[in-house]
Amino acid sequence: MQICKAINVPHLDLLKETSHLVGIFSESFQEEEIANYLETSLQSIDSLTVKRIGNTLVASTNFGHSQRLLLAGHIDTVPESGNLKPIIEGETLFGLGSVDMKAGLAVMLGLSHEVQNPVVDVTYVFYPCEEVDHIHNGLFNLSKTNPELLKGDAAILLEPTSAIIEAGCQGVIRMAITIRGKRAHSARPWMGVNAIHRSQRVIEAIENFVERKPIIDGCQYHEVLQAVGITGGVAMNVIPDEVVIKINHRSAPDRSSAESIEYLETFFEDVIDPDLGDEIEILDISEPALPGLNHPLLNKLKDLSGTEPRAKLGWTDVSFFASLGIPALNYGPGDAALAHGPNEKVDRSEIESVYETIFKLLKNGL
Amino acid sequence: MQICKAINVPHLDLLKETSHLVGIFSESFQEEEIANYLETSLQSIDSLTVKRIGNTLVASTNFGHSQRLLLAGHIDTVPESGNLKPIIEGETLFGLGSVDMKAGLAVMLGLSHEVQNPVVDVTYVFYPCEEVDHIHNGLFNLSKTNPELLKGDAAILLEPTSAIIEAGCQGVIRMAITIRGKRAHSARPWMGVNAIHRSQRVIEAIENFVERKPIIDGCQYHEVLQAVGITGGVAMNVIPDEVVIKINHRSAPDRSSAESIEYLETFFEDVIDPDLGDEIEILDISEPALPGLNHPLLNKLKDLSGTEPRAKLGWTDVSFFASLGIPALNYGPGDAALAHGPNEKVDRSEIESVYETIFKLLKNGL
Repeated sequence: MQICKAINVPHLDLLKETSHLVGIFSESFQEEEIANYLETSLQSIDSLTVKRIGNTLVASTNFGHSQRLLLAGHIDTVPESGNLKPIIEGETLFGLGSVDMKAGLAVMLGLSHEVQNPVVDVTYVFYPCEEVDHIHNGLFNLSKTNPELLKGDAAILLEPTSAIIEAGCQGVIRMAITIRGKRAHSARPWMGVNAIHRSQRVIEAIENFVERKPIIDGCQYHEVLQAVGITGGVAMNVIPDEVVIKINHRSAPDRSSAESIEYLETFFEDVIDPDLGDEIEILDISEPALPGLNHPLLNKLKDLSGTEPRAKLGWTDVSFFASLGIPALNYGPGDAALAHGPNEKVDRSEIESVYETIFKLLKNGL
Repeated sequence: MQICKAINVPHLDLLKETSHLVGIFSESFQEEEIANYLETSLQSIDSLTVKRIGNTLVASTNFGHSQRLLLAGHIDTVPESGNLKPIIEGETLFGLGSVDMKAGLAVMLGLSHEVQNPVVDVTYVFYPCEEVDHIHNGLFNLSKTNPELLKGDAAILLEPTSAIIEAGCQGVIRMAITIRGKRAHSARPWMGVNAIHRSQRVIEAIENFVERKPIIDGCQYHEVLQAVGITGGVAMNVIPDEVVIKINHRSAPDRSSAESIEYLETFFEDVIDPDLGDEIEILDISEPALPGLNHPLLNKLKDLSGTEPRAKLGWTDVSFFASLGIPALNYGPGDAALAHGPNEKVDRSEIESVYETIFKLLKNGL
């Protein structure tokens, strides 16, 4: 049996525990078996109150401490890429979900067993369906149906961040701009208006977008405006009367989504013409989350991690905590760039590094 | 019975004959019944030798005159738009194919009966499948399998031109430009290359294309370069790695298609980058046809029509005659803008006007 050197717990092998979790198939919508395993393990700990709602597990200590820290992780994986079986080579584990995010789950499970008398109250949240549409997301649904179970002062989401604190998250606004024209025979384009030609101004504007890179709590965010889809055309001999451009905007958390939408509407004002039928449609909004590093617990975590925090440029479930008024950050083992790919793998050192940092926070507090 | 006033042939009612032809269902690939009707009618004329190949009919006089004029028309229609039944209101016929091009067929049939001793030899060509892919086109196939049946000095295609001579035709080059990029997560677009953003330069170039408008034989052509389709995008959170732009070019007949392609390849040189994987693909070529108004028979037709000829901006089957070295023009009753629509209709005056012009040419020659 491996020894977890960092914390000197001879019986705790987090790489092996991660491997065991990888071995339990848990593609989205099929999380019952892994939820059963986790429930049994959590139920064995006297200091925890465990609630199960569907395949979502909420296990909390109730010592009446002044602070409560939430630790959260999703238990589902994307479909396999020929890497269903966990394989350990040396100090590295290969397999589906090793990075995203069964290494994080192993850390949570290890902490629940090894820190049964934390100096802050702790709520562990294991939830299904993070890899599919938001409407299925276990954390999102819990925040709607049982928000009382998510009460807390700060939260750590153990998504893979290479064991570096990634603070808050950028928001996402998905929108569609429809540019209209007027059909005509392609031999007489002057009888119509070519929507594809008109759409060029929108793309040009997007390309000339000046990205804001605000620094918040020492973390530099990086806004993005990109065309991610374009469709137009009727037939090879018809001047097209419609083009739809799909646009992805990543917004830094110093602006709310509402403010970002207002900004974008002004930004595109010069290149669309409502009189010609052009339209902007907001397809989907994911709110940004502020870094929250000024919260004492998260600030302490930053010090304990011994690394410089960076801004989370993507969007993560920390946004759900932010929507409940709970400062949250991303901090977990594994390289996110390997997630969802056939070469998913995680090193023992990163798992133990994250474990050690949170272990110290729970043991010693502020 | 109506009287064909223009030519004073009391028994010939071309509007009624057109109506009868509209009443014979003849959607592409289903032309047997109308071919049977036409064959029977043509076989009744002693001076004609009639050959039938599938549903293509070739009926020719063989007086040994020094000149032979070809008259051609397609016998199929597009699918109906709720206008299958012919309806005559006053001097106007409504119904599928009334314009495109059963009025033209009625003119051909009328001439074959009324001018049995023309001063030039005449070949009438009735052919199927003009409204579908070129590979099915009866005239195209005849030009490949039995070119001897299409021998002649000049040709008139009786497609609808509002009884105005439309000379030659512009060519069509359909092409696809593929612009490549490199996929990346939409939160980190700088890790990739956005193909939609890159494609903007191609659209901009197309929009700035300076159209040539050469005058040939007194007819002004009008070249066109238009984007008619655009598709790109992988998913809302992925920087797209490919955009395909479909382009339609109409080329004036003073350039061959080969010359036009060479021109376009140079034109797009500055906005595509083969090193990044960008590609130009020629999808389809339809050769242009010169106006041919300098041929004595067609020049005479022009004089007899009493109208100013104009350039044919679209592409028509005159191109097949041009490919056989036969000067050809478009001249037929009906407004082409109404073709393929639910409001297809043709006036008696246009049918009789075209009939009269060609009648005089066949009767009196040069």
